[in-house]
Amino acid sequence: MKKIKIAMLGCGVVGSGVVRLLRDNRESIRHKLGAEIELARVLVRDVGRDRDVDVGPDVLTDREDDVFSSGDIDVVLELMGGVDPARAYIERAFEGGASVVTANKMLLATSGAALLRKAVGRGVDLAFEASVGGGMPVVRTLHQTLAGDRVSTIRGIVNGTTNYVLSTMADTGAGFDETVKRAQELGYAEADPTLDVGGGDAAHKTVILAMLAFGADLDGVKVFTEGIEEIEPEDHAMAERYGFVIKHLGIAERLDVGGVRLRVHPVLVSKRDTIANVDGALNAVEIESRGLGPCLLSAQGAGSLPTAVSVVGDLIDVARARLAGAGGSLTRGIQLEPARVAGVDDVRTRYYLRFRVYDRPGVLGRIAVALSEAGVSVERVLQEARGGADESPVDIVLFTHEAREADVRRTLDFLGKSDFVAAPVRVLRVVA
Amino acid sequence: MKKIKIAMLGCGVVGSGVVRLLRDNRESIRHKLGAEIELARVLVRDVGRDRDVDVGPDVLTDREDDVFSSGDIDVVLELMGGVDPARAYIERAFEGGASVVTANKMLLATSGAALLRKAVGRGVDLAFEASVGGGMPVVRTLHQTLAGDRVSTIRGIVNGTTNYVLSTMADTGAGFDETVKRAQELGYAEADPTLDVGGGDAAHKTVILAMLAFGADLDGVKVFTEGIEEIEPEDHAMAERYGFVIKHLGIAERLDVGGVRLRVHPVLVSKRDTIANVDGALNAVEIESRGLGPCLLSAQGAGSLPTAVSVVGDLIDVARARLAGAGGSLTRGIQLEPARVAGVDDVRTRYYLRFRVYDRPGVLGRIAVALSEAGVSVERVLQEARGGADESPVDIVLFTHEAREADVRRTLDFLGKSDFVAAPVRVLRVVA
Repeated sequence: MKKIKIAMLGCGVVGSGVVRLLRDNRESIRHKLGAEIELARVLVRDVGRDRDVDVGPDVLTDREDDVFSSGDIDVVLELMGGVDPARAYIERAFEGGASVVTANKMLLATSGAALLRKAVGRGVDLAFEASVGGGMPVVRTLHQTLAGDRVSTIRGIVNGTTNYVLSTMADTGAGFDETVKRAQELGYAEADPTLDVGGGDAAHKTVILAMLAFGADLDGVKVFTEGIEEIEPEDHAMAERYGFVIKHLGIAERLDVGGVRLRVHPVLVSKRDTIANVDGALNAVEIESRGLGPCLLSAQGAGSLPTAVSVVGDLIDVARARLAGAGGSLTRGIQLEPARVAGVDDVRTRYYLRFRVYDRPGVLGRIAVALSEAGVSVERVLQEARGGADESPVDIVLFTHEAREADVRRTLDFLGKSDFVAAPVRVLRVVA
Repeated sequence: MKKIKIAMLGCGVVGSGVVRLLRDNRESIRHKLGAEIELARVLVRDVGRDRDVDVGPDVLTDREDDVFSSGDIDVVLELMGGVDPARAYIERAFEGGASVVTANKMLLATSGAALLRKAVGRGVDLAFEASVGGGMPVVRTLHQTLAGDRVSTIRGIVNGTTNYVLSTMADTGAGFDETVKRAQELGYAEADPTLDVGGGDAAHKTVILAMLAFGADLDGVKVFTEGIEEIEPEDHAMAERYGFVIKHLGIAERLDVGGVRLRVHPVLVSKRDTIANVDGALNAVEIESRGLGPCLLSAQGAGSLPTAVSVVGDLIDVARARLAGAGGSLTRGIQLEPARVAGVDDVRTRYYLRFRVYDRPGVLGRIAVALSEAGVSVERVLQEARGGADESPVDIVLFTHEAREADVRRTLDFLGKSDFVAAPVRVLRVVA
């Protein structure tokens, strides 16, 4: 029986999942592929460390030359994460004629287009389903299912930690810090959760999705990014009251005027929207395209086995192409061109604004006048009566009609300096 | 530039969508494929008929030999539907060395495994994403993404007409006949809607999904099938009252005892379930697998362009493999084995039972005793007070705890013969 020799870089959470899947489904994979997959090398930093899975002492190595110099590896699975040395390793793999499967979103967001070009140049494949949405088949859908269609918009819950924190805050009424702590205890958040709750990770994934959806070279593009750190229980309560749920989305759009726009921020989504019911650590991506219309995918966005499922799915595809003598044929179909990337100034959407103000006469009027002078028209206002006669601030919540981001921002900058404003204004965009 | 010559069988709703997509996205497809797709023949019954799209007089033909005898066709798109002569045409295509893309669910449900074996034998591909869920990438997900995982269950809203009728009844309170009529006016239901609302179409699709998910040869298998014709506004009202939505699902399970089980019937789904919010003519499939856990896909399940998107996506895949000299390599991965198909007697689930009874003393007691004697335990009961003092029947609604289908059926057969029962008992299974 034919063999596909693979090497794995890194053997952490995802790596152990891959080893487990390859073992548990050995028979069915051999059947599907008509070949045996042999895990020939596993490159790790410390060969002595205790691991969840046993790959055998002959396979483990801490020397990169063991992986790249032998020239007998068909497919390299890069599961170490980070830009360096992952990038150099992938390039070495290509040079040696190996195809690569990676889960590395940070690397793809900064150098995906460049790496794809290198793969094509070498006649090998670079597959990366696992880089976005864990086991969710979104890369494949954009690359294959929609190959004959034209995508206009992508909206995605692409970070499980953020979604877990938001869902839990909405369910329990707890604050942000407390909820993050709980997420950390449950393993849903890292010790340093900044990259997740700050939106950086979602931005990486949004770049990858936009690259595929729009055929655009977006290597290292700067994405407008807001995290969820400032969202308070009051915001969840207000969302609930008006039939919304707060979600943190990555949004990528193809603009009618040419170019693309990428942004990552929390939004209010109608409760009736399917994506509103994607709770906990689940991920979801909604793709809107000309022919197909809306298409929603949802699955576990992280975790050992879900991510490993995508890695192994890619591995089987890449191996199959290789066995058929068609290595590189999957990747050749990804054609990327430079694209103009627009900022968010011209975004038009409805806004939720929560002003925490000292309750003095005329405050509501001053807010309303400032908004109206900037051309921002108010749809509805809520100001609750204060409990006592004390000096503690009150909340005024406004929903605007559709307005231009730059106009709203300008007004808020101006109002933010007013003496009646007790705390920074909370801004959430309403996604229709 | 290289060329891929294709022939299309049938030029109806889906066919015109394909022609349009190939035309609108010509540039980007050529780019992605590195080759030109040439629509060389279109086989139709009547070449003189007016059509939505113009394919040119030299391309249209009503003689099958024009398609199959020239030997120059790379890929045949079978978009005519029905078992005959579609099956014979596909086999002729294989014999001539062409790969086939089909949207034909009825044919695949009856002869999918046999056709796949023929394709493999001839070294060509048979692709069929469009056969289930229109543009929803479910075939690809089962075949590729989950190639290294083990699927346990699939639950799907796979018929848009049925889902439209159910959503509309729930929203408007209207009856079944009235709603079907409205669906027909809007183009969501056929003149004869039996295959849709009776569940036959959903059964075909469930067979295809199960074949892929479980690697099982299920050609012509009989599926336990119930339609939605008997569901009344009262059932929607009760569902709403207890936090449920009525959906019509195709369910395929891999059984722990070996073998598989397929069934198609209406169910009560919790409103909080994502699938509960898949409304109108949308389709959705929920896949549960060992590694990935739950995965949901949702999109337009029918219509010209959505289905055409899947056809063109498959065409590009098949063409790419062919151009790389790897024709047949996609299909070789689908390995099917015979499988034991279990009936529904041993299904264990919660049940919703609505008895329409003449309100005589002791009726509730007799129902409760009969259920209890069969080992079916009641979770809650609702009997509304009657309006007047007349003889008109009243509804008793019961939710059972988890019970065995055969036990519930036996009891209902027995109770159905009682003189106090005014109408057939309505049974809905509750999907947790």
